[in-house]
Amino acid sequence: MSTTLDLGLPDRAPLAGLPARVRIHEVGPRDGLQNESVTVPVEVKAEFIARLAAAGLRTVEAASFVHPKWVPQLADAEQLFPLLAPVAREYGDELRLPALVPNERGLDRALAHGVREVAVFGSATETFAQRNLNRSVAESLEMFAPVVRRATEAGLRVRGYLSMCFGDPWEGPVPVAKVVEVGRALLDLGCAELSLGDTIGTGTPGQVAALLREFAAQGTGPEVLAVHFHDTYGQALANTLTALQHGVTVVDSSAGGLGGCPYAKSATGNLATEDLVWMLDGLGIDTGVDLAALAATSAWMAGHLGRPSPSRAVRALTH
Amino acid sequence: MSTTLDLGLPDRAPLAGLPARVRIHEVGPRDGLQNESVTVPVEVKAEFIARLAAAGLRTVEAASFVHPKWVPQLADAEQLFPLLAPVAREYGDELRLPALVPNERGLDRALAHGVREVAVFGSATETFAQRNLNRSVAESLEMFAPVVRRATEAGLRVRGYLSMCFGDPWEGPVPVAKVVEVGRALLDLGCAELSLGDTIGTGTPGQVAALLREFAAQGTGPEVLAVHFHDTYGQALANTLTALQHGVTVVDSSAGGLGGCPYAKSATGNLATEDLVWMLDGLGIDTGVDLAALAATSAWMAGHLGRPSPSRAVRALTH
Repeated sequence: MSTTLDLGLPDRAPLAGLPARVRIHEVGPRDGLQNESVTVPVEVKAEFIARLAAAGLRTVEAASFVHPKWVPQLADAEQLFPLLAPVAREYGDELRLPALVPNERGLDRALAHGVREVAVFGSATETFAQRNLNRSVAESLEMFAPVVRRATEAGLRVRGYLSMCFGDPWEGPVPVAKVVEVGRALLDLGCAELSLGDTIGTGTPGQVAALLREFAAQGTGPEVLAVHFHDTYGQALANTLTALQHGVTVVDSSAGGLGGCPYAKSATGNLATEDLVWMLDGLGIDTGVDLAALAATSAWMAGHLGRPSPSRAVRALTH
Repeated sequence: MSTTLDLGLPDRAPLAGLPARVRIHEVGPRDGLQNESVTVPVEVKAEFIARLAAAGLRTVEAASFVHPKWVPQLADAEQLFPLLAPVAREYGDELRLPALVPNERGLDRALAHGVREVAVFGSATETFAQRNLNRSVAESLEMFAPVVRRATEAGLRVRGYLSMCFGDPWEGPVPVAKVVEVGRALLDLGCAELSLGDTIGTGTPGQVAALLREFAAQGTGPEVLAVHFHDTYGQALANTLTALQHGVTVVDSSAGGLGGCPYAKSATGNLATEDLVWMLDGLGIDTGVDLAALAATSAWMAGHLGRPSPSRAVRALTH
């Protein structure tokens, strides 16, 4: 019996118009753990990241240099980066370990730890900008400008996150024009990549297509775009497929679906990396990820969190 | 604040090449409850079906006339149909309440209860045919032949299910040619519709496209095909989207994702009707379903089963 059959992997069958390779931007250690009620010890985080790299992931968002009082789950960024030195040495330039930096103070902390890639986190809607960043969208762009400028001058790659790109819990559906305007402003600041987030998971494939089409119409092609879907309403993988059909090749996901508790009434987790890799493997799209090693890592982390993984593929692969 | 915003529903955004309307074949009361460990009282089943119809579903697979010793959860088909008389009267010909019939004895029982639509359940693979039907694929087709003939002669509509269309737990990936051959044989017997089942949930979008293309190449268009996906690896909705992009307009799903327990290590449930309707609503595709009423029905049924619904949309909509 072959390994393929042991894993239950599907026969490879490509679909016209999809890319040959997808880069997965793994957000489990940062976005995932940030939204878990349990705070994981820093040594476990370091081992988690090492295991994700060993499973073949080459972009692993590691930490956030936000003020510790806002996100206690990630207050240990200073302790974490020294523990990542061995894995950073092992994989060299091949492995990206970006960190979120909310402002210049966060950038200073990231630079002090030798971080080579950072991300800023913007909002497409005024309400979420006020609630999450305590300022307007325009003011948040002003705050990001020196962060992006100084980071790029220091040779760092900068990613821009844009949240609430499809629906906003206070404002409802978000106008495509507004998302494109704010997203292009982030790119104009100097971001090398823009990650379009469906923060509340309400988006559906037609909205994904419309947004990507409007970006293209305004001169921003899919080569600088990434997608970041949440599985709140079960739409994440269908939306991802649609984004791939429109030329996107960078997809954010979270190992084991970290960030959404399966026992919470509202499971607002990220797309699970395993569910994504299952689809991409089946489509014959190269990700470099060893799905069995990844699922074992997520099952191990679920043990640290004291509950099963919300990823369907993890549950199916590790029973 | 509008009802749309209250529900968190996405703004409508169509996607090119999709149908204007999808008929949902609701399998929760039959396929769903058949795979739950708890056996639900017959009065609760009748109320469940009435609530599903009230939520706008117009094809609700109600029962199975299999021998009671094989599926104790569905042993009450004889008791159930009389209880469905009021709902059958209320909706008339508009509401279909099909029942599974494994053989002529099952058909006799269905006819005795005035069932107007039946389904036979075949397998694309020899191993599953032997394990599930205790005979070869060819022998199972011989068994179905008089069932389909007598049912159609009696004026009943017959649906053919074909299981293991993508992967088989014993045989691995299933050859497309074999699926098309057995599927067309079921249609040739007189089935009005063929439901292609991914029984173990391993299929991915490229396989869906390849299978539908091969059916078309052999002269079987999507107008007589339905798709039946399981969410074991989280692929069901992406696969459904792909099927819609290839012309399929009938989709099987299970209210609340019934049939897959969220606490089981391997959640082998059907695609949740709510996750499906969320996507179709967002795409502006008409289903006739009131999503809020449906989610409330699934939450009510989850209470009878003593556990939360595995549907992500149900959890998000009913918290």
